[in-house]
Amino acid sequence: MKAICKTQPGVGLQLCEVAEPTLQPGTVLVRVLRTSLCGTDLHIYSWDSWAQSRLKPPLVIGHEFCGIVEAIGAGVQHLKTGDLVAGESHITCGVCKPCRLGQAHVCQNTRILGVDVDGCFAPRIVVPAANAQKTDPRIPPEVATVQDPLGNAVHAVLDTPIAGSTVLITGCGAIGLFSIAVAKACGATRIYATEVRPYRRQLAEQMGADRVFDPQVDDVLGIIRRETDGLGVDVALEMSGHPSAIALITDAVRPGGHISLLGLFTQPVAVDLNALIFKAVQIHAILGRKLHATWEAMQSLLASGQLDIRPAITHILPWQEYEHAFELTASGMAGKVVLNWE
Amino acid sequence: MKAICKTQPGVGLQLCEVAEPTLQPGTVLVRVLRTSLCGTDLHIYSWDSWAQSRLKPPLVIGHEFCGIVEAIGAGVQHLKTGDLVAGESHITCGVCKPCRLGQAHVCQNTRILGVDVDGCFAPRIVVPAANAQKTDPRIPPEVATVQDPLGNAVHAVLDTPIAGSTVLITGCGAIGLFSIAVAKACGATRIYATEVRPYRRQLAEQMGADRVFDPQVDDVLGIIRRETDGLGVDVALEMSGHPSAIALITDAVRPGGHISLLGLFTQPVAVDLNALIFKAVQIHAILGRKLHATWEAMQSLLASGQLDIRPAITHILPWQEYEHAFELTASGMAGKVVLNWE
Amino acid sequence: MKAICKTQPGVGLQLCEVAEPTLQPGTVLVRVLRTSLCGTDLHIYSWDSWAQSRLKPPLVIGHEFCGIVEAIGAGVQHLKTGDLVAGESHITCGVCKPCRLGQAHVCQNTRILGVDVDGCFAPRIVVPAANAQKTDPRIPPEVATVQDPLGNAVHAVLDTPIAGSTVLITGCGAIGLFSIAVAKACGATRIYATEVRPYRRQLAEQMGADRVFDPQVDDVLGIIRRETDGLGVDVALEMSGHPSAIALITDAVRPGGHISLLGLFTQPVAVDLNALIFKAVQIHAILGRKLHATWEAMQSLLASGQLDIRPAITHILPWQEYEHAFELTASGMAGKVVLNWE
Amino acid sequence: MKAICKTQPGVGLQLCEVAEPTLQPGTVLVRVLRTSLCGTDLHIYSWDSWAQSRLKPPLVIGHEFCGIVEAIGAGVQHLKTGDLVAGESHITCGVCKPCRLGQAHVCQNTRILGVDVDGCFAPRIVVPAANAQKTDPRIPPEVATVQDPLGNAVHAVLDTPIAGSTVLITGCGAIGLFSIAVAKACGATRIYATEVRPYRRQLAEQMGADRVFDPQVDDVLGIIRRETDGLGVDVALEMSGHPSAIALITDAVRPGGHISLLGLFTQPVAVDLNALIFKAVQIHAILGRKLHATWEAMQSLLASGQLDIRPAITHILPWQEYEHAFELTASGMAGKVVLNWE
Repeated sequence: MKAICKTQPGVGLQLCEVAEPTLQPGTVLVRVLRTSLCGTDLHIYSWDSWAQSRLKPPLVIGHEFCGIVEAIGAGVQHLKTGDLVAGESHITCGVCKPCRLGQAHVCQNTRILGVDVDGCFAPRIVVPAANAQKTDPRIPPEVATVQDPLGNAVHAVLDTPIAGSTVLITGCGAIGLFSIAVAKACGATRIYATEVRPYRRQLAEQMGADRVFDPQVDDVLGIIRRETDGLGVDVALEMSGHPSAIALITDAVRPGGHISLLGLFTQPVAVDLNALIFKAVQIHAILGRKLHATWEAMQSLLASGQLDIRPAITHILPWQEYEHAFELTASGMAGKVVLNWE
Repeated sequence: MKAICKTQPGVGLQLCEVAEPTLQPGTVLVRVLRTSLCGTDLHIYSWDSWAQSRLKPPLVIGHEFCGIVEAIGAGVQHLKTGDLVAGESHITCGVCKPCRLGQAHVCQNTRILGVDVDGCFAPRIVVPAANAQKTDPRIPPEVATVQDPLGNAVHAVLDTPIAGSTVLITGCGAIGLFSIAVAKACGATRIYATEVRPYRRQLAEQMGADRVFDPQVDDVLGIIRRETDGLGVDVALEMSGHPSAIALITDAVRPGGHISLLGLFTQPVAVDLNALIFKAVQIHAILGRKLHATWEAMQSLLASGQLDIRPAITHILPWQEYEHAFELTASGMAGKVVLNWE
Repeated sequence: MKAICKTQPGVGLQLCEVAEPTLQPGTVLVRVLRTSLCGTDLHIYSWDSWAQSRLKPPLVIGHEFCGIVEAIGAGVQHLKTGDLVAGESHITCGVCKPCRLGQAHVCQNTRILGVDVDGCFAPRIVVPAANAQKTDPRIPPEVATVQDPLGNAVHAVLDTPIAGSTVLITGCGAIGLFSIAVAKACGATRIYATEVRPYRRQLAEQMGADRVFDPQVDDVLGIIRRETDGLGVDVALEMSGHPSAIALITDAVRPGGHISLLGLFTQPVAVDLNALIFKAVQIHAILGRKLHATWEAMQSLLASGQLDIRPAITHILPWQEYEHAFELTASGMAGKVVLNWE
Repeated sequence: MKAICKTQPGVGLQLCEVAEPTLQPGTVLVRVLRTSLCGTDLHIYSWDSWAQSRLKPPLVIGHEFCGIVEAIGAGVQHLKTGDLVAGESHITCGVCKPCRLGQAHVCQNTRILGVDVDGCFAPRIVVPAANAQKTDPRIPPEVATVQDPLGNAVHAVLDTPIAGSTVLITGCGAIGLFSIAVAKACGATRIYATEVRPYRRQLAEQMGADRVFDPQVDDVLGIIRRETDGLGVDVALEMSGHPSAIALITDAVRPGGHISLLGLFTQPVAVDLNALIFKAVQIHAILGRKLHATWEAMQSLLASGQLDIRPAITHILPWQEYEHAFELTASGMAGKVVLNWE
């Protein structure tokens, strides 16, 4: 079959012929309907230092997908052929201490689809059954495919006391955009968002943010303080990976407030720890999705219609146009870009 | 001034002339805009055994109100004349162990407005400053007055992991009706409600319940199980005080689910504790409002428009028609009945 | 090999020759060092109505054990031959909603060792790898074998805010006795225990209870109130399955307190729900062990010496004396009775 | 009366005659039995930049004390003359949003004894009744006086899942030392501590630390990893205010672990946020004591004997030797230094 691959070190991707994946005990074979692009895929494309240190080409890349189960490996009982499933990208071991403690999102033996093992930018994929999350057929495929990163947003939001809370979200990439809708669906009462790109600020408004700022221009802190009796927001979600967002959040979160940290940084960040201590804030660092509580909540929110994240899915392209999809994602002139494999 | 009073033991209430309340240090004088009727007021009206054992007439009754601060007692700094405030009915001591632990809703020295001290069915009332909850003027007065019982609903809902959850609410009196809207506003994904009176079932639908049942007729358990893969609801809120609701909830809550108990019962209830143990459910008994975290969340939800409970407010009458208001409340052919004192 | 079996319906057990268990993928073969007796085993022995409805003889019974891994099935990577392991009796599916939510203790497809599948009262047993909990070799075998029921106690205690709390434990069977030591090790400041049998009251004192009562004679409620400023205990653990304990706990827990319910009842219990609601207590129904967070905490507490439950292990007998072991357990003149299979 | 004062800007303190404090409504007059020295007092003594910006001499300094209630102001009902009380240094408003949310430790209008208002280094002090915490007379006065900083330790420890956890405590000043004993009393299973001063390392051992390191010499991280299967500690408590401790904790806490931050830093700290995110840790910034839940837990732990922090109280001097007390505290050759005012 033809798949989008990293065949060797260096910039770019290659469309090449690879062997059909083989069903193993405990796995399922999925016919891919849609895939979507993540920042990680961009890192692999551009072959940055992280990609150089982590990937061992050749590899089929991609980890966000949905599809139809076509075959079931021995021992798999909770899935059947014809089921709509979506990809959970973290393959976890189940036996390390974090796994045993219900913290499989920090499994010590995590392998990631499209990074450590062959991924989903292909017409078919074989994954461990636990990585094929059964998905309600009421959820359209372009939404089903983005559940892996949407799950990060659900995890980040639900790790805070969101109901009745005012919220600041710094950074409106895909996960930041998703977080706006998740926060609103779960009881946030006022949502502030920051984003440097005008295109994404517009998307943030469409997702339901009450006020959207350009942090390079607007007096974000001043406005938030004026509108919160000088106290700041109850909850802050850091989704940008930019050091200035840490400074903003440190100032803008209220005493006793909650912070979720999700965006990754290029280097250590100077943090005014005293300011955080004097405010006695609680900070949750967020990685991946709670396995599988996040998936259960996300499915319930999506299938019921309580959560609608479609405005953040800005492009659906035939898979053959993947180079264009990468350009769009890299340009910042896109929310989530989906590839159609049907 | 003229107030609605219990002047002596026996059925009924009396409209009578009482002395103007006197401002004390730590209190505020409020000009009453609206009051609303609670089941407790009905108990006092009908002079049942609870009322006989608790009340010491003569007394101005009523505890749900909103109004405008007209005068400020010594030492009160966070309120000013002209503020819109709403009544918190529990006067708490601040020094008992529950108060010290942040559980003032079970203060050991609680006195209740309109039960233990003069209440609000009057043109003016003096209350401790902590019992005059500052209210956002964007909230209309007929909503502002019902915040005390609405707070019970907010407390009951937010003591569960509501976001992404399916919910069963047994009993659609005012607090049950409120709970529907609160659950929806905070991320519930499917809401089942039971209520024996057709009038209130209709209100339950207006409040946003997905399915409303007559528990005497419908196969509530069967339907819930069919729609939840046989597991049951994630969250159950008992708002009826009827023993059959305990049996239903015991069967209908999923393993690992959460129950909030709010409705009061006329006698001990036979509970299938083993069924609850085999399901390892968590049960929170709910009393009053968290002081004052519930008020903060409620204000934020109401003022932002995230929560709208107006369909449950079915009647607004001139205060002079209070006898009719009591009839309406007793009949079950009403949601919340509000009296206008302007 | 010779094993203790239920060969057919009726009272009693039989020592009989059974086939050696066969290693399967995902399982381990364990040479049994010690086993211990549980109330469940007594039910099976006496062939009560529960046993009649659940068991399908012939069956090797028993579910509490420790032993040495002798062989490893395909795919098992975290255990190796020579490891000391202990039995977790619940075989769970990993894919039902409770399992996915991290609540495998209420797995919808639970099978129990010695109840639904062959058990451990035998020289060798094959179990799924997840049911052979790796155990620190510093833990002596007679302690290692009782970790399954000890885990229930750890689960019940750690589901409450135990540090700095006063505690009432109703019922001093094995799990009640264990709970005393667990509570003390985790910061309980005063432990009250009730038990009808004098022998077990003595054990309760040895385990570290501060005051031990005969609930049929002593004024338990009066004493607790006198010693807690009239408020009651912060935490109550119900370990007896006796309706009078529910009444006692309802009265003896303080407003805002926490209850863990573990003991099973022979029929529905009349509960004064209003009393619990007016106190706004939180009740956790406890089943089994959190998989595997309870095991991690328990291992850490035992291996470090922070927790010592040895006084509750009153008898260690050669396995051939199993009839005597059952008599001892049934008599109430024992804490935990251990069988030695070496 | 004679009191220890800051009479004017500059280094040092003065013993001078001040007016007797006057009882006001809502306050109590306390005859001081013992006081103790805090790092804050050192800052005031040495008149550093913080002190210069915050204090307005003249002022009686000191905020850690215990004493006997000698007179009761109007409206105070839960204290009586003769009660042993201890000082809570934060005077809070009760009406700001954090106070209303049960987070009075970050009250927006906090005034601190001995910093913003006259303190306790005097034979008598008048404080708001809420700042005179009733203390069990079984607690000796040299312990009673240190409850304010001990409360910080209790708060820091109990904000983590301490039972069954391994713990790293960086920094063994008084609060670090206290934390060792609190963690042990509440179920910690292995306690690692770091401290640069040999004197305090010895105290750390006396308090119950299992391993005490000199972080400038020892391979702390290597040893912790070796003893925790390479994973790191479950819980880390930062009590030093030294940037290198942040780096150590970032490396030494396990994936999914918990951090309490209490020590204050002289400037922003470069934090490897990615490392914390990849571990999905939870960080609680700790300020003061939960009012008054921390006091309730602390009293219960101390009065029962479950917690013993006496080895950390290294010096008890007559109050007249206060200059020596300051020298001792500044030298690092002391744990807690107590002044006797009897």
